[in-house]
Amino acid sequence: MKPIVSIIMGSTSDLPVMEKAAKFLDEMEVPFEINALSAHRTPEEVEIFAKGAAENGIKVIIAAAGMAAHLPGVIASMTSIPVIGVPIKASLEGIDALLSIVQMPPGIPVATVGINGSLNAAILALQMIATGDEALQNKLVEYKISLKNKIKKANEELAQVSYKYKTN
Amino acid sequence: MKPIVSIIMGSTSDLPVMEKAAKFLDEMEVPFEINALSAHRTPEEVEIFAKGAAENGIKVIIAAAGMAAHLPGVIASMTSIPVIGVPIKASLEGIDALLSIVQMPPGIPVATVGINGSLNAAILALQMIATGDEALQNKLVEYKISLKNKIKKANEELAQVSYKYKTN
Amino acid sequence: MKPIVSIIMGSTSDLPVMEKAAKFLDEMEVPFEINALSAHRTPEEVEIFAKGAAENGIKVIIAAAGMAAHLPGVIASMTSIPVIGVPIKASLEGIDALLSIVQMPPGIPVATVGINGSLNAAILALQMIATGDEALQNKLVEYKISLKNKIKKANEELAQVSYKYKTN
Amino acid sequence: MKPIVSIIMGSTSDLPVMEKAAKFLDEMEVPFEINALSAHRTPEEVEIFAKGAAENGIKVIIAAAGMAAHLPGVIASMTSIPVIGVPIKASLEGIDALLSIVQMPPGIPVATVGINGSLNAAILALQMIATGDEALQNKLVEYKISLKNKIKKANEELAQVSYKYKTN
Amino acid sequence: MKPIVSIIMGSTSDLPVMEKAAKFLDEMEVPFEINALSAHRTPEEVEIFAKGAAENGIKVIIAAAGMAAHLPGVIASMTSIPVIGVPIKASLEGIDALLSIVQMPPGIPVATVGINGSLNAAILALQMIATGDEALQNKLVEYKISLKNKIKKANEELAQVSYKYKTN
Amino acid sequence: MKPIVSIIMGSTSDLPVMEKAAKFLDEMEVPFEINALSAHRTPEEVEIFAKGAAENGIKVIIAAAGMAAHLPGVIASMTSIPVIGVPIKASLEGIDALLSIVQMPPGIPVATVGINGSLNAAILALQMIATGDEALQNKLVEYKISLKNKIKKANEELAQVSYKYKTN
Amino acid sequence: MKPIVSIIMGSTSDLPVMEKAAKFLDEMEVPFEINALSAHRTPEEVEIFAKGAAENGIKVIIAAAGMAAHLPGVIASMTSIPVIGVPIKASLEGIDALLSIVQMPPGIPVATVGINGSLNAAILALQMIATGDEALQNKLVEYKISLKNKIKKANEELAQVSYKYKTN
Amino acid sequence: MKPIVSIIMGSTSDLPVMEKAAKFLDEMEVPFEINALSAHRTPEEVEIFAKGAAENGIKVIIAAAGMAAHLPGVIASMTSIPVIGVPIKASLEGIDALLSIVQMPPGIPVATVGINGSLNAAILALQMIATGDEALQNKLVEYKISLKNKIKKANEELAQVSYKYKTN
Repeated sequence: MKPIVSIIMGSTSDLPVMEKAAKFLDEMEVPFEINALSAHRTPEEVEIFAKGAAENGIKVIIAAAGMAAHLPGVIASMTSIPVIGVPIKASLEGIDALLSIVQMPPGIPVATVGINGSLNAAILALQMIATGDEALQNKLVEYKISLKNKIKKANEELAQVSYKYKTN
Repeated sequence: MKPIVSIIMGSTSDLPVMEKAAKFLDEMEVPFEINALSAHRTPEEVEIFAKGAAENGIKVIIAAAGMAAHLPGVIASMTSIPVIGVPIKASLEGIDALLSIVQMPPGIPVATVGINGSLNAAILALQMIATGDEALQNKLVEYKISLKNKIKKANEELAQVSYKYKTN
Repeated sequence: MKPIVSIIMGSTSDLPVMEKAAKFLDEMEVPFEINALSAHRTPEEVEIFAKGAAENGIKVIIAAAGMAAHLPGVIASMTSIPVIGVPIKASLEGIDALLSIVQMPPGIPVATVGINGSLNAAILALQMIATGDEALQNKLVEYKISLKNKIKKANEELAQVSYKYKTN
Repeated sequence: MKPIVSIIMGSTSDLPVMEKAAKFLDEMEVPFEINALSAHRTPEEVEIFAKGAAENGIKVIIAAAGMAAHLPGVIASMTSIPVIGVPIKASLEGIDALLSIVQMPPGIPVATVGINGSLNAAILALQMIATGDEALQNKLVEYKISLKNKIKKANEELAQVSYKYKTN
Repeated sequence: MKPIVSIIMGSTSDLPVMEKAAKFLDEMEVPFEINALSAHRTPEEVEIFAKGAAENGIKVIIAAAGMAAHLPGVIASMTSIPVIGVPIKASLEGIDALLSIVQMPPGIPVATVGINGSLNAAILALQMIATGDEALQNKLVEYKISLKNKIKKANEELAQVSYKYKTN
Repeated sequence: MKPIVSIIMGSTSDLPVMEKAAKFLDEMEVPFEINALSAHRTPEEVEIFAKGAAENGIKVIIAAAGMAAHLPGVIASMTSIPVIGVPIKASLEGIDALLSIVQMPPGIPVATVGINGSLNAAILALQMIATGDEALQNKLVEYKISLKNKIKKANEELAQVSYKYKTN
Repeated sequence: MKPIVSIIMGSTSDLPVMEKAAKFLDEMEVPFEINALSAHRTPEEVEIFAKGAAENGIKVIIAAAGMAAHLPGVIASMTSIPVIGVPIKASLEGIDALLSIVQMPPGIPVATVGINGSLNAAILALQMIATGDEALQNKLVEYKISLKNKIKKANEELAQVSYKYKTN
Repeated sequence: MKPIVSIIMGSTSDLPVMEKAAKFLDEMEVPFEINALSAHRTPEEVEIFAKGAAENGIKVIIAAAGMAAHLPGVIASMTSIPVIGVPIKASLEGIDALLSIVQMPPGIPVATVGINGSLNAAILALQMIATGDEALQNKLVEYKISLKNKIKKANEELAQVSYKYKTN
């Protein structure tokens, strides 16, 4: 089994946030790998990883980082496969990481999701791959339908909230 | 009893914030309903709700949402009855929800209240309806007078704070 | 002809922004008045205005202010009719005015629209009045339909943008 | 004993912050009063207070408020004696209160101190009064000297921090 | 020739920003379409577009919007194909649009690029499609190499900047 | 004629902003001086000035500064007379100067006015001195009354704005 | 043993943050001192320290401060040796301290590190000194290599995270 | 003549800002080089430059970048010589570049100066080198003295500003 999605994070302290991405890929039965790499502490390893990713069969990279979050942009500068950036809330409510990831200069995009938005990063990764994979596309359509159940359940809970002038 | 105010929220996690709105409507004896709808997870249900609201007798809609809070604006795009938006503090101290709700483009207003300001949303809803309902207007005048009691009580408490050079 | 909407601004420098509100009310044939009042320079006049507004037949007040924008909140504290606040961009990109207007304490709501959002303020004012006025409600439904024309025209313009690989 | 400084707050929830102001005035043996007033809930009482303050012998007013903090500015609009504004941290880290207080329009200043800066408000009040009161001026000079003791004590504590290469 | 990328914008005022995206797709010889749609003014047309996009052969959608920028998120809620959001700088330096686009709730990602980052949106769109299209992947690799020429040219210009102590 | 108010600025580029303060003091016939001093370029001169100010008859200091605006706080650390800080908009819309001036630590207040708020600084200076000077207090009361004329004039201008449904 | 690095802080409450700097200098066997000085409470002591630092053999000064953080800039104005500023998170998530330190006017730089970034301040201090000290430069090269171990350890931990579709 | 300071920028559009740094180094007769390098467009060249800098005799690197400004941090990750980061104002008033540069993770500092603060970057570079170079240290002491002349000249200009109640 060869991974097609690669999750990269700068430290294991990001794991609790990133687990939602791993779990979603697992549920969707898409092989993936998880590695720790740091744009600042291990630049050579980042380079080796980024330059070899396409050849190793990786189709999308998810990179999470906090503070002056350079990791997604640095990886994106060294590969042509799409990079998804997840801003981690480590300081300043995560706004520093968000700006450091999303405000990339012309020529090197990073597909940025919301602060701590690891689940959305995983979904987006599969949406990208599904542009060329009909079976995966069908799985995503089903997943989208399942999102409505959350709301159905919420309505059942709200139905039990009782007020004299509440009519439903 | 048919509801004339509809409270919409994206998830039951918003309920603790929104209960103050429900409680106020209950106290003012105005029939209302509470439902969970999501601009992103159940767009069809949002459409059905928004387009049918006026015909169903709803006079004002209160919509609460956090993060990229699209729900109030999306509802407002599909009805001519006024929509009150309540920015929920879920990330970035609520400033993302506030801007996502208040900065609507020309043509489709959302009446925005403060972050987590559900009580004010309910008062505002009744102020709107009271423009054509004198009895309700009188209730609101009385409510406004009652607000002063909070301050009276505060002064009684402050009177008991004692310092040598405090004169009152 | 007695006005039912009152537009208040702190200085004539706000007029270029607020003219869109006046123009919309005029188009919708709703009688209105425009006055200058300052929460800080003429507090007594604000009080006389706010306390008399309901009796004078005003149904909704639109108040515009910049910087430490207290005018909408101060008026709202002295009347039970709904107050719509328009944050004027005079400093700090208008974020000071927005926060000064929207973050009202529990009990005294101000229906806030976007920065310099005077057209939306006027639409919202009529939506409020239309909760008790079916004829006006019908006018608003028509107005909403007319908004689509802007997009139709935009598409006609975009159709003329020409690229070799542009298919439409 | 007649008060010459008046501390105003919108609710007793501000008392824990404002107690430092009261304590300082007490230590400096300056008579003061504490009252709860709300720009939005009790506008008439605010007016009576503000307009009578000078005649009642008040020389400086300290007004604390959070969120859309209008109280200091509203009081300042109704009196010629100086008003010190204390932004209370109640939402958005206090930045909403700071901007609502400090960004006053030309003509009606509010002397603003830092977020939750009640001690500084009290010191500033006495500095103002001391412009016409030499005895008070001398007390403030002494207080300023006492501030250095805090640093002396800090240095004694730091002297006990021990590292092999720490030389002091 | 059937389009595989669809560029959507809320008004023709966004065209000057979005032209860089069109130009890049044209250079890369990828068929695309450009249309104006508004989440708020033409919600039905948005729905028809979004729900039919996959069937119509669209593989990636690029949606640009300013202020309370709901368009990308609303489209994303109605399709499983990836949506790229371009925050347009129309107010507040574009930070309102950025937050309205990027801070999507769990389940419905929008791949967000920088403020006014339309070129990056187009590159990202092709990176996504290239996950299943080797020929396109090769084009992107070549494009990446061409980016270095900009820097080469910059160095030639800098070589002509002359100072006595400048050594190169 | 000896000055009782001292206006300090870091550079002559601040003069266009600060002239409103000078003009107001002139109108109120209060002797003042204007000097350039820099917390960072001429710390010794700042110290000589600040420590001698009280003895030289200065009753209030107005200090203007932009960016990392240390001047007001540094002066305040060296004198017991009140210091008014004017944040100059030189970068970041003036928010850096505002925070650098207003967020003083406990013990050393700076009375902060709005960004570029030099007129308010001058009014505040005289309000402070007026706490011990009845004649000046009377002048300020008269000035306050004159503020209403601005609004009167604004209303005359607004009366000439003509719409079919404008009633006044 | 004479210190060559001097760590200054405004209060002992900054010590928990600054200990990482002390610890690093200790590990690198570089003599240092720690003192408490306040730009606002003890300006004379700051002056004596700053003006004597070079003569006393200090090569770099690390100054930490929160809120309106003037200490680093004030020291920098009185010495020609480099000053490193550490913004302490005491209010507003530390953004006030960051701007008060970094936005220095032309002529007097402060080398600013991230919010609460005391370890980086110590590393930077040694990098500065190492420009003229080869032995120290070698130690820093070794330290840099050691940073990679953190990542190695992180990867060992991530290797133990187990999912069905995780391939590594 | 071999350079000891290296100025790096991402594009020639940064040159107008960075010229002040070049000019200062020239005046101080310190050999320097200027090159364009991009963290994202030419990562290999950045690596070659950064890893060879120390060996090539470079003692300090000044790196300027805007938006998601990764260049200073990426260079810092590959060398042990100090890196000074200059945030360029290209979007969001420069706050994105400031945060992307200053908020570096523990282990890899970047000495950050203010937005567009290129002169301060050059001064700081020489202060660093002067820790091991007494002649340079003397030049900096002289430069510091010269800063006072600017203020002297400002005072001469202010002396010519004339008001009836201006006493100096």
